[in-house]
Amino acid sequence: MTEQSRILDNINSPADLKRLSPVQLQALAQEIREEIIRVVSKNGGHLAPNLGVVELTLALHYVFESPEDRIIWDVGHQSYPHKLITGRREVFHTLRTFGGISGFPKRDESPHDAFGTGHASTSISSALGITVAKSLKGCSRKVVAVIGDGSMTGGMAFEALNHAGDLGKDLIVVLNDNEMSISPNVGALSSFLSRKLSSRTIVQFKKQMEQFLKAIPGVGSNILQWLKKSEDSFIAFFTPGILFQALKFHYIGPINGHRLERLIETFEKAKHINGPVLIHVLTQKGRGYHPAESNPTHFHGVGPFKIDTGESCSSGGCPPTYTSVFGRTLVRLAEKDPRIVAITAAMKEGTGLDKFAGLYPERFFDVGIAEQHAVTFAAGLATEGFRPVVAIYSTFLQRAYDQVVHDVALQNLPVVFAMDRGGIVGEDGPTHHGVFDFSYLRHIPNMVVMAPRDENQLQHMIYTALKYERGPIAFRYPRGYGLGVPMDEELKEIPIGRGEVLREGNDVVLVAIGAMVHPAVEAAELLKKEGIEATVIDARFVKPLDEELIASRAEKADAVVTLEENVLQGGFGSAILEMFSNLGWFPSRFLRIGIPDLFVPHGSQKDLRKALKLDPESIAESVKKLLESNAKEFRTKSARLRAIR
Amino acid sequence: MTEQSRILDNINSPADLKRLSPVQLQALAQEIREEIIRVVSKNGGHLAPNLGVVELTLALHYVFESPEDRIIWDVGHQSYPHKLITGRREVFHTLRTFGGISGFPKRDESPHDAFGTGHASTSISSALGITVAKSLKGCSRKVVAVIGDGSMTGGMAFEALNHAGDLGKDLIVVLNDNEMSISPNVGALSSFLSRKLSSRTIVQFKKQMEQFLKAIPGVGSNILQWLKKSEDSFIAFFTPGILFQALKFHYIGPINGHRLERLIETFEKAKHINGPVLIHVLTQKGRGYHPAESNPTHFHGVGPFKIDTGESCSSGGCPPTYTSVFGRTLVRLAEKDPRIVAITAAMKEGTGLDKFAGLYPERFFDVGIAEQHAVTFAAGLATEGFRPVVAIYSTFLQRAYDQVVHDVALQNLPVVFAMDRGGIVGEDGPTHHGVFDFSYLRHIPNMVVMAPRDENQLQHMIYTALKYERGPIAFRYPRGYGLGVPMDEELKEIPIGRGEVLREGNDVVLVAIGAMVHPAVEAAELLKKEGIEATVIDARFVKPLDEELIASRAEKADAVVTLEENVLQGGFGSAILEMFSNLGWFPSRFLRIGIPDLFVPHGSQKDLRKALKLDPESIAESVKKLLESNAKEFRTKSARLRAIR
Repeated sequence: MTEQSRILDNINSPADLKRLSPVQLQALAQEIREEIIRVVSKNGGHLAPNLGVVELTLALHYVFESPEDRIIWDVGHQSYPHKLITGRREVFHTLRTFGGISGFPKRDESPHDAFGTGHASTSISSALGITVAKSLKGCSRKVVAVIGDGSMTGGMAFEALNHAGDLGKDLIVVLNDNEMSISPNVGALSSFLSRKLSSRTIVQFKKQMEQFLKAIPGVGSNILQWLKKSEDSFIAFFTPGILFQALKFHYIGPINGHRLERLIETFEKAKHINGPVLIHVLTQKGRGYHPAESNPTHFHGVGPFKIDTGESCSSGGCPPTYTSVFGRTLVRLAEKDPRIVAITAAMKEGTGLDKFAGLYPERFFDVGIAEQHAVTFAAGLATEGFRPVVAIYSTFLQRAYDQVVHDVALQNLPVVFAMDRGGIVGEDGPTHHGVFDFSYLRHIPNMVVMAPRDENQLQHMIYTALKYERGPIAFRYPRGYGLGVPMDEELKEIPIGRGEVLREGNDVVLVAIGAMVHPAVEAAELLKKEGIEATVIDARFVKPLDEELIASRAEKADAVVTLEENVLQGGFGSAILEMFSNLGWFPSRFLRIGIPDLFVPHGSQKDLRKALKLDPESIAESVKKLLESNAKEFRTKSARLRAIR
Repeated sequence: MTEQSRILDNINSPADLKRLSPVQLQALAQEIREEIIRVVSKNGGHLAPNLGVVELTLALHYVFESPEDRIIWDVGHQSYPHKLITGRREVFHTLRTFGGISGFPKRDESPHDAFGTGHASTSISSALGITVAKSLKGCSRKVVAVIGDGSMTGGMAFEALNHAGDLGKDLIVVLNDNEMSISPNVGALSSFLSRKLSSRTIVQFKKQMEQFLKAIPGVGSNILQWLKKSEDSFIAFFTPGILFQALKFHYIGPINGHRLERLIETFEKAKHINGPVLIHVLTQKGRGYHPAESNPTHFHGVGPFKIDTGESCSSGGCPPTYTSVFGRTLVRLAEKDPRIVAITAAMKEGTGLDKFAGLYPERFFDVGIAEQHAVTFAAGLATEGFRPVVAIYSTFLQRAYDQVVHDVALQNLPVVFAMDRGGIVGEDGPTHHGVFDFSYLRHIPNMVVMAPRDENQLQHMIYTALKYERGPIAFRYPRGYGLGVPMDEELKEIPIGRGEVLREGNDVVLVAIGAMVHPAVEAAELLKKEGIEATVIDARFVKPLDEELIASRAEKADAVVTLEENVLQGGFGSAILEMFSNLGWFPSRFLRIGIPDLFVPHGSQKDLRKALKLDPESIAESVKKLLESNAKEFRTKSARLRAIR
């Protein structure tokens, strides 16, 4: 099919779908797959999840009237087909690029994106809120949450089901069951969901069961009544449905998620059911693209690739990723220390624990998309003398903030938090940037917080964290490739709370942490060309700070710049301010460089760092400005403020 | 029974229980109830939950060998009987007092407290961690988690069940089902749990069912086999057990939780079952004390009361509590604005929403112990133009930190957070103090954070929050009585980000927030007596700050003291430091008063504030010291630091 004759090119809103014949819809599904493969092969993105939901998306938009009916995509990385048919076809090529459309649903982007997502397991809660709102307004529009079986393992999905079942409003939950989250699913729920009886067996059994129940006085007919509440209840009784029936959901399924007509017919039916409904749809991740079908974990989220083979376009010869350095260092340490156990929340590959899992299966725990449980489970292990390492993305540890406070830090348990994807993550955007962790961890008593400047320091920090037995300790490292620095053979313990001077200079002190250390050094080199001599300190620790080192150098230069890839509110720079406040004096010139008080959009890490002035050139510029100013000028600022009042 | 002849007086460890006859155990249960009633009537505490688990506790300690076997109490407010028989009988009268024993399990306090608790739904996670650790060590000791049906609605309990069922280790979960959390339970799960068939009916039905299934070739015998996995499976199939069976737990129950012999027999049996077991025990909250039996919600947690009548000892004539001011103000506003809806996570009475719930039942939502869902549910409501108010304790909002970031603030939805129990809460101690909220909310973009200085300002802040439609807004207020200030008739809107000068003076500026404003004023009065004139600013907003007001006054006095009932790391004082850093100058003298970097223990609010030097006398003292010092002295501090190195 040539581009000119595509059906897709005439789909400007879901209304256009309704004019299509079944055959045309089927053809459209194929076109959508091709378009997604084409764009993702260039821009990178979540391929397999989107290929799995093409028919499901078409059927939903065929039956429901978005945006008046609301469709909410849990996690949202499967929303590409939805975006393509809700007015974003022409900008779809900008997917995940700086200034382009997001890889996740976004309320700002389209009225069809009823609720923004990114993290898992939120869709039933938000959909229930919308359902209740509609009901209070007396509006009978439908609300649909589409949630994967992986997201269903997240506790908040259960909280929402429990509440929804209780309220009894007309909420439709579509369980998109591909027996995977990112990796194949774990958990008792997952194996229960797979306990499917063939429909023929069920029909046969149903008849006999009915006759039997009718024959029992009292109880029998009660149960029969309960079973017969609808046509599907009976099947539900001997399928995964029982679980949802128990929570007072009407269960329909399981249904083949790639048969458009069956999906449409089912959704039409669900539309007319009162009370909460759960439709169990079976889909295949990566459907329709052979490389993705055969390796859905790899193609869950990918960088650019060659369409014909599925081969990755990465040029090769890249330095190791931080993730891989973490993974192999942990294996190296685990070999010698049997107390080391590793925990992930459905991110075995993403956190680099696959090798560990292979070598030490009995010491590896994938708990499902369940960050809260992951942390408290680790705390339990720590009470028995083990050294649990929770490997988790910075943004997802936000889910377990209370567990870090209440179960780990309060009891001062030696749990290690290996926080991947710290700082700006790039194309996944604001739901995934790990830019709050210094702030949300630093204020917790007993916590030690580190960040490595490069992959070599990362390995030493892993070693240091596991040497440290006095309480919880966290280290956060960036997404992506290391800097290509030489890797020390021997692992070294870094003294807790000690920074390191990387460069000496009398004009200004740059105190940097983590990913900002090397840019600070580069900025110092640029400044040198202009005659400005900078000291660069790698603080290494956000908490505890190396107060002696920082204060002594600060006193000499009397001009201090802090640098961090974290929000400026309550972060590393604020820790340094607090330090000076405690010491009772402040440098005459002081500047904090970091992320301002806003949600950072999506785009490449490079583009975003540039835009946020976190690149060496911008840093040098900011430092120069600071040194050119003088205290008097500053004072006038507050005078100006007063004048405005 | 006189005190001299008590069996309890000879119980120094659980080992002593095993020497008792059934009759003696029964008598001991009675003595334990009396002792708990006696001490709680003086010290206040969680009465009804403890009276409900006396037999359960005795049976557990009779069968298992604590501390080698581990018993973990979910939430932990039901651990008084446990404390009484595990070596803390003689200090039990110090319960919840400053320096005395805690009202919750605490690892520091006894080896029998296997895991500290306070927040709900953590026990299965930690117990599973301990179970796995024991299994890795090849130790066959037992691990028991005791969890209420209320806590079972928390998502992380489900996450843990899902993981436990998957791992298949020997974990014992005791579901303490009293059909209540604090108030009667809500949620579909709860009504499912109550779906109990009488055992007689079941036995009869079972026989017929077996015969029927045997007669069906293939499927029938498969199902029969599944049902017969153990003696109890069959019952489970038609009782709440199906839910737990689905998660691969062996289900036993329901069992009367006040029949000691039956409990002992059941636990003995459970000890020998391989794999995860759930024992469903039915108990009555407040059991054995008539006032608590008839009003278990009131007696869930109480202050001192008269034993004979259950009447509260509060002297009367107290000012209204902050909670009650919140409750009635919200009702007043809701009357005029039908968009206002209220959400609580199982804290209808605790947050003062009972009146609202009575008047506007269709606009009131108790979602169960499910803070994460509560916040995202509210976000959903906000997208439809409603004005959701999430009424929640500061410490419990920690559970929903990610939802505040990801579902509310990122989408800039106008959700109102009414944060009760902000600051030091008193006797409930470190698991319940609300001392992190300024820090964990302030760094979230789009958030507005307020704290009222008294109950009159609280009502204006509620009004202000509901007038504010541009994004999320939070206000936090203390536990307990207001200050008795006059209440304005008319509600006033406070301009966002504007502070208020309460007192003028040229020597120093005290910038205080929330509960620290009045102590700051009192401190200023004390300082005046010593010839020091202080300006006192009520900042009202932690974010955004009134930069103009604070900076202009600071410039005049050149000495600034910040005051907050929050940790000093990343809190209000740090926000002021950041402000000065942005302005480019700092006052010559600067001091932050607040909570240091440690977990605050339990004790009365008054004792704790005194100990933390947050009382007016201590504040005055600290300010005097600051003013007596000079910048040069400060500089020597860091010189000293260097010398140490």
